[in-house]
Amino acid sequence: VPPPGPPAALLDELRAVVGPNHVLTDPDQTAGFSVDWTGRFRGAAAAVVRPGSTEEVAAIVRACGASRVALVPQGGNTGLVGGGVPLAGELVLSLTRLDALSAVDVAAAQVTAGAGVTLARLQEHVDRRGLAFGVDLAPRDSCTIGGMTATNAGGINVVRYGTMRTQVMGIEAVLGDGSVVSHLTGLPKDNTGYDLAALLVGSEGTLGVITAARLRLVPRLDHRVTAGLGFDDIAGAVAAVTHLRAALPSLHAVELVLAEGVALVAADLGVELPPALRAPAALIVEAAATTDPLEELAAAVADLDLVAEPVVAGTPEQRRRLWQLREGFADAINRLGPPVKLDVSVPIGRTAEFVDSLPRVLPGGLDVIVFGHLGDGNLHVNVTGVPADEPARAQAVEEAVHRAVVERGGSISAEHGIGTAKVRYLHLCRSPAEIVAFRAIKRALDPAAILNPGVLVPAD
Amino acid sequence: VPPPGPPAALLDELRAVVGPNHVLTDPDQTAGFSVDWTGRFRGAAAAVVRPGSTEEVAAIVRACGASRVALVPQGGNTGLVGGGVPLAGELVLSLTRLDALSAVDVAAAQVTAGAGVTLARLQEHVDRRGLAFGVDLAPRDSCTIGGMTATNAGGINVVRYGTMRTQVMGIEAVLGDGSVVSHLTGLPKDNTGYDLAALLVGSEGTLGVITAARLRLVPRLDHRVTAGLGFDDIAGAVAAVTHLRAALPSLHAVELVLAEGVALVAADLGVELPPALRAPAALIVEAAATTDPLEELAAAVADLDLVAEPVVAGTPEQRRRLWQLREGFADAINRLGPPVKLDVSVPIGRTAEFVDSLPRVLPGGLDVIVFGHLGDGNLHVNVTGVPADEPARAQAVEEAVHRAVVERGGSISAEHGIGTAKVRYLHLCRSPAEIVAFRAIKRALDPAAILNPGVLVPAD
Repeated sequence: VPPPGPPAALLDELRAVVGPNHVLTDPDQTAGFSVDWTGRFRGAAAAVVRPGSTEEVAAIVRACGASRVALVPQGGNTGLVGGGVPLAGELVLSLTRLDALSAVDVAAAQVTAGAGVTLARLQEHVDRRGLAFGVDLAPRDSCTIGGMTATNAGGINVVRYGTMRTQVMGIEAVLGDGSVVSHLTGLPKDNTGYDLAALLVGSEGTLGVITAARLRLVPRLDHRVTAGLGFDDIAGAVAAVTHLRAALPSLHAVELVLAEGVALVAADLGVELPPALRAPAALIVEAAATTDPLEELAAAVADLDLVAEPVVAGTPEQRRRLWQLREGFADAINRLGPPVKLDVSVPIGRTAEFVDSLPRVLPGGLDVIVFGHLGDGNLHVNVTGVPADEPARAQAVEEAVHRAVVERGGSISAEHGIGTAKVRYLHLCRSPAEIVAFRAIKRALDPAAILNPGVLVPAD
Repeated sequence: VPPPGPPAALLDELRAVVGPNHVLTDPDQTAGFSVDWTGRFRGAAAAVVRPGSTEEVAAIVRACGASRVALVPQGGNTGLVGGGVPLAGELVLSLTRLDALSAVDVAAAQVTAGAGVTLARLQEHVDRRGLAFGVDLAPRDSCTIGGMTATNAGGINVVRYGTMRTQVMGIEAVLGDGSVVSHLTGLPKDNTGYDLAALLVGSEGTLGVITAARLRLVPRLDHRVTAGLGFDDIAGAVAAVTHLRAALPSLHAVELVLAEGVALVAADLGVELPPALRAPAALIVEAAATTDPLEELAAAVADLDLVAEPVVAGTPEQRRRLWQLREGFADAINRLGPPVKLDVSVPIGRTAEFVDSLPRVLPGGLDVIVFGHLGDGNLHVNVTGVPADEPARAQAVEEAVHRAVVERGGSISAEHGIGTAKVRYLHLCRSPAEIVAFRAIKRALDPAAILNPGVLVPAD
């Protein structure tokens, strides 16, 4: 039995707000908004509403509040934790029409982007003014600034620029009561009250609907060098990260791969590994600067205790060949069968001990492949060998890994968020007092509980 | 008539929590906690309570909540806006005994500091491990990490490292209901719920009592070069900041001085100005790196349109002589009589127009001296000529400057905060909807309204 859906009077009201063409109810039209891109999270939108302005978003939220109809805000629908699809028959609030992009303020190195602006469009826009955006993600053609802000997106350059939270200088949003808060001045120093922007970043659509963000930009760095460095063990790679962070100001990314995993990727790609990447643990390090960073990189690397000659890639083609060994992990692993994928972080000094513990804590007969953004302590843990039709075994794997993470002061969600997928595990790393505080904040800003119910905040 | 003071039963309860020696009621003992260091804000503490642990803070907050007695959290008492003194006879919660400092985690480049740790002690502690803290302030021997966090302190290195908000990776705090929230893992990527730390930073003691913070550290930069650069006008200086931000990765500070003001400082110090600092607008630029940044600085400066030969200071003594021209402003201005001091920021591209507008918007017969952290658009506006015994004229000056700021999308408090001093002006730069949201958050986390009433959030 499908959920009852919104009352006809509400749909009429919404049509009056956004125009009849922007309230979709035909299942053929709403289907694409109802399932995430992995296909793992599948719901049924009662309707999809596509506002064209912040004022329209506010009118929609007020109307839904009055009718007590729940909304799921949706951007590019590239999330991974079931936080942006209507799993309980909610109305989908699609924000892709909010695609305004201000002129680049070169003096301030900032730009204002509507929630529906894709990352790729933002990148092109600021590149023309010699600037860049500090967060980059693979689904850049689809993912939107609103979604990236609401989920505090990360990626491989966090070691240099931080996550979305660091880029967001101000937000415009519609809170749960339909009020519009807007503070897009983007001043680097502005101590005039609670930082609503910082609270909304990472709130996953549960406190307000982000309609625009003022974003910090960074210098465009046209000179890049990538290196592959081999170490005896993970502890050696961790020590190298500490050294590089101090000695290499142009450090732009530092990714960990382990011997077994990268060998699998090389076999999958049909390429031969350079000696550095045949080491037990290896780093792929990228330096980026406005002038050639090769000398700085070479000097910083010279002090490291390496087990093989480093491989240094200066040309785009050489760099591509090195990066494909990192980027090929997802495909190579998928060819072993669908893995249980976990996105976790641990304090970087405990990385070795955490990875070593995995064979002990996991059920027997399973293989584990670990790689990730070592500069941030962010590891992607992939466990293969669990049949797709045995969800209880997958859940046992998730719990075992999460417990190993939490015992070491780690996080069960490094960059993907909680969504609906991990809400049952939140208590593992946030205390009862914290969850009570989350609920109090949720009630304060979304008193009718209509914004993304079931996401992030565990039910009372 | 003094306020009634806390009930005797409450004081007994507090003595049982912290020990009788740590509940001060003798006016000789409480006087120092009742007035701010400028002497402008003077109250009378009903009592001063000095807890020695987070658990004791929680017990105090619970006891005060049950008795509906208000608390003012206090650190080093170096604030400038009357946010940390008991102006309405509140109980002072002095946090200086919470002075634990963890071992430095070199791999993560982090440390955990109790609220009562002074900035100077933190700096010494991390310096020994080759690291530094990203925020530096003149009252470093007194100001505490708790107060700096609660007020989102800034200073001259924000252009490189951001404010306290950027340094704080996690917080332990006691909320208004006496519950303890603690998330000190300091993971750079951790998307597990609302960012309570980001909300508490800058909340000025109104949502929770910060008891400890996990802090990001930065590499210690032992090589520094300072330069004085002269420009035809403020617009030229602003264009130079834009250029330096991209071309000089070692940019550590960039301060603006104007001809009249710096001439006053030079006369006050009895020194001669180098030609660069006799220009209409001048920048004092500092570059800092792990290796000598002179070459990088020289290359970046070579592209600028200067009106005089730059002055470049490489030795500590040369650098001191240049910096004294910036640091001498407060004393030189004070010798003209007590000024009306405003701490504002404007979008950096509107700096010239804002400064030019001041003579027009200010009442006649007054002089204005502007200088500040141009890299952040943070300007200190000092207006002289208002007699100390004419507060209505001082208020007219404040209002005129604030309006000129707000018309340009600026902030009426760049780094000092709102406190009690500016709460009446908050509506100038935050909308009614934002203030409603602030009140809702305040009620959510401090339901009994006992934490720093009268500070930051305007009365309903």
